[in-house]
Amino acid sequence: MTDISIIGTGTMGQAIAAVAGRGGHSVQLLGKADAATPATGEVVVLAVPYPALSEIVSQRGAELAGKIVVDITNPVNFETFDSLTVPADGSATAEIAAALPDSRVLKAFNTTFAATLAQGTVGDLTTAVQIAGDDADAKATLTEVVTSAGLRAMDAGALKRARELEALGFLQISLAAAEQISWTGGFGVVA
Amino acid sequence: MTDISIIGTGTMGQAIAAVAGRGGHSVQLLGKADAATPATGEVVVLAVPYPALSEIVSQRGAELAGKIVVDITNPVNFETFDSLTVPADGSATAEIAAALPDSRVLKAFNTTFAATLAQGTVGDLTTAVQIAGDDADAKATLTEVVTSAGLRAMDAGALKRARELEALGFLQISLAAAEQISWTGGFGVVA
Repeated sequence: MTDISIIGTGTMGQAIAAVAGRGGHSVQLLGKADAATPATGEVVVLAVPYPALSEIVSQRGAELAGKIVVDITNPVNFETFDSLTVPADGSATAEIAAALPDSRVLKAFNTTFAATLAQGTVGDLTTAVQIAGDDADAKATLTEVVTSAGLRAMDAGALKRARELEALGFLQISLAAAEQISWTGGFGVVA
Repeated sequence: MTDISIIGTGTMGQAIAAVAGRGGHSVQLLGKADAATPATGEVVVLAVPYPALSEIVSQRGAELAGKIVVDITNPVNFETFDSLTVPADGSATAEIAAALPDSRVLKAFNTTFAATLAQGTVGDLTTAVQIAGDDADAKATLTEVVTSAGLRAMDAGALKRARELEALGFLQISLAAAEQISWTGGFGVVA
């Protein structure tokens, strides 16, 4: 069993809490009112929109040292829906990893809509969570959390692959915004 | 019926020829020995690896004026499998569009492995061809070619979305190279 803290109580935070619960893990769900409450989990999922990350990092940086920190954001410019707001050769995850040098930062859950996490499937396919990061042990821990909930975990490679995962997340959001797919569908992975 | 020229006789060129044939379109398939043969189609698919594009563009630039030119490339660094070889804020398609200002350039077929085009499915899902470009009529023509073959066509947005399509293609190739998916699988789209 892994102790998991989830910061953010929106649809994604709730869906990831449901995943962790299905897998039999211990879940601490922290909302805005819990800013003074320490995140106690070995794994801390930052289930907040990209613009909220910097405040969390500055508030909780010391507390996150040594922990596995999971970035789920898609830093889309939601005014234009036409670009990401991070440098073209970077990613939100790279920024967080730079700001939290003593944490083991992973990218995950940004390519799966909340509904597909909650229901465990996208269409007839098992929902596949793509995980990128540079720490193999951290990836193994999160992989166990994901697979224990009946989801598929995929190793998307090094932390720098967060760039491609964010591009995929952006594309998927723009397809849903254009009503070419629904928010309960999206990209599924066929082995 | 649309007249389609395909430059490149590798697995992707053959698979796209099969798609066009299934849709009842006229197909001209041109290999390396046909460098002096004009591409006669209204739609010209450049089904070659990225490094071969510049020579084709310089040889056939005048001939491609006015035509719909389809770029299918994934400009992956195949030595390292760790990056794309185009600028981070650009794409192979943007380079071709700049080199062929009198053509109507589209990105398509770079997120579907050859086998999924040939068989028409990825797992139990209909293969979805994502198309990006700035010319609505050109996209409509290619969409008709794709859907007439029983595939799904998706409008991925403007030409600048080729950046995200190339990231998706890169990710899919790296997952297959790491044997996490097969070359007959990959990303499927669930509506």
